[in-house]
Amino acid sequence: MTTAELLSIGAELLLGETVDTNAAFLGRELAEVGLPLSTVRMLPDDRGVIRDAFIEARGRSGVVLATGGLGPTHDDLTREGLADALGEELREVPALVEALEERFRAFGPMPAANRRQATLIPSAESLANPIGSAPGWWVERDGVVIALMPGVPSEMRRMWTDQVRPRLAACFALPPLAIRSVKAFGIGESAMAERLGSLLTSPPPGVEAGIYARDDGVHARFSTRGDPTVLDGCVARALAAMGDDAYGTDADDLATAALRRLGELGAATVCSWEADTEGALLAILAAAGPVDGGARYVGGVLDAGMAPGPRVADAALQMSLLPQDANGRSRVRVSISGAVSLPVTELRIHGSGPQRPRRAAYAALNAVRRLSSSDR
Amino acid sequence: MTTAELLSIGAELLLGETVDTNAAFLGRELAEVGLPLSTVRMLPDDRGVIRDAFIEARGRSGVVLATGGLGPTHDDLTREGLADALGEELREVPALVEALEERFRAFGPMPAANRRQATLIPSAESLANPIGSAPGWWVERDGVVIALMPGVPSEMRRMWTDQVRPRLAACFALPPLAIRSVKAFGIGESAMAERLGSLLTSPPPGVEAGIYARDDGVHARFSTRGDPTVLDGCVARALAAMGDDAYGTDADDLATAALRRLGELGAATVCSWEADTEGALLAILAAAGPVDGGARYVGGVLDAGMAPGPRVADAALQMSLLPQDANGRSRVRVSISGAVSLPVTELRIHGSGPQRPRRAAYAALNAVRRLSSSDR
Repeated sequence: MTTAELLSIGAELLLGETVDTNAAFLGRELAEVGLPLSTVRMLPDDRGVIRDAFIEARGRSGVVLATGGLGPTHDDLTREGLADALGEELREVPALVEALEERFRAFGPMPAANRRQATLIPSAESLANPIGSAPGWWVERDGVVIALMPGVPSEMRRMWTDQVRPRLAACFALPPLAIRSVKAFGIGESAMAERLGSLLTSPPPGVEAGIYARDDGVHARFSTRGDPTVLDGCVARALAAMGDDAYGTDADDLATAALRRLGELGAATVCSWEADTEGALLAILAAAGPVDGGARYVGGVLDAGMAPGPRVADAALQMSLLPQDANGRSRVRVSISGAVSLPVTELRIHGSGPQRPRRAAYAALNAVRRLSSSDR
Repeated sequence: MTTAELLSIGAELLLGETVDTNAAFLGRELAEVGLPLSTVRMLPDDRGVIRDAFIEARGRSGVVLATGGLGPTHDDLTREGLADALGEELREVPALVEALEERFRAFGPMPAANRRQATLIPSAESLANPIGSAPGWWVERDGVVIALMPGVPSEMRRMWTDQVRPRLAACFALPPLAIRSVKAFGIGESAMAERLGSLLTSPPPGVEAGIYARDDGVHARFSTRGDPTVLDGCVARALAAMGDDAYGTDADDLATAALRRLGELGAATVCSWEADTEGALLAILAAAGPVDGGARYVGGVLDAGMAPGPRVADAALQMSLLPQDANGRSRVRVSISGAVSLPVTELRIHGSGPQRPRRAAYAALNAVRRLSSSDR
């Protein structure tokens, strides 16, 4: 099976100033396309290191993607590194210079540095970047496909979706990876493993099964490159094994489940109030977006210092994170008032460190999800 | 100079289900310690691949860190991979079994699978994990240090800070990397490069200079392993070159700058209202935390559908993101009412895709930062 590898290029990645979200995006996409990502390497802005990495990757994988290092500044060296790896020369392409100048017209004259972005090697085709100045490259040589994309996530995603992904799909026709997951909150990884039993240790033929701990609970994941309907049985068995601890499958999330439950219980709108959680609850609820039949989130208040204030929504979800005890354990205090009611409840949260506020928020949302009809 | 490399282990990374935030954290920390991260590799849960990666990394770098693959389940294979790479045997350690059982006592009996986490090889020492079940490993062999840490970010950070970082500092005494940055909003990368001129292309001896585009603007970064005071001059020159477009240095952020400006203009509290931005403004303001002398953020409202509502803060910052035009460009409408006032203003934002709401929020915060005293 053809595999892909990714070179994520830029000193800012190795210095930790940027989190490489491109790798996760491309990992998901490549799995779907059926060209699994076999490895990712992060590289500094060093022409020799980039050259060697391209040589190594071409010797190992049928598809080599690179992100970053296509900007106009002197430390953008991906073009040079690949040219060296292939033994080809960079040349300025008049049509690309023109396209760049056209792009800059609205902003004023094009800075001279940007001419570097109008270069190609003989075996490369240019990939247009409609939302940024850095064009990408598409190279097919010696049976290996290489695609260079910008490091800015929005530009990379657009170029991937419009150009690189369709071209890869045309070159390779491979069975896509189907993935299903079951998500639970309030139990640990090994407890989930025991409940899943043989479904985890000896899943159906062609299925891979795994368990992953997340801030929003524990996820069981099943994947296959065979007939995807075999995963339906895995999901059904896992849901049965998890019982009430499961809150959903696949793209389901706790905020959506909580908003849906509030809607079922008669609240058309909900607001939030939180203390000592740095806005974690508010950020998670805002990101959830509208939920069919669910309560609509209308906003939130931070801090203990505020007066209770007027009623802005049918239900108000309140939470405050309590300090950690000597063992680093903490509890969160949760309550709901209004059209739906939950008396003040304390819940234990696992883990410490910067995840505490988010874990507290998920614990509160899980408590909302588990409200019964008598809590109306 | 001794360099470090990192193996980030776990199928979920390559499938894109988890973003590798550990790599960025360790990149920052290693730069500070003076052991620069030379490369990062993401690897699947494959014993042979993990073994080969450890062999390769040991041959190249004086320090090899690995995160992930230390859990109790059958696909946690980092221990086995390293044992194979070193030609050593895994053995269960009674003291570690006891410590794990003690940890589980509060939760019920220890699942049998967790015994795998109580194994070591002869050349490894165990690193305690006070907030999770996976102990780490510390290995010194043949002049190379190898440290295994859990993949859960909170557990990894605690183990790094309390144990791995101090041990590395004791083994290696290297000049730390000093980093300073100047941040600007509203200009592009190449325009910043032109304004910085020779400061970027020929910085002082021993200083590296670079420019990075971010959702919150463009950052110029200066770093050195020599005398860090040389960076003060670079920062002063960059600030002078950027003028009003610069909003701060180093850890400064736009939300903090905006809250400080509102405080200077007489608003002790501020709330937000936003439309079509998925809570981006509210999430950024909530994450900023309290600012000395600045306005306190008390919460926000989403959606256009709400009645204006009562006055909950001295100043109300409102924004709505307008639809993209045919070229993918968009504008954001911003206004402030209350103790501070800004009439409705439309600002252009750059980029498209999922970054739009955040970029719109930063554009709004930049408009707040630039308020003059006559806007009181």
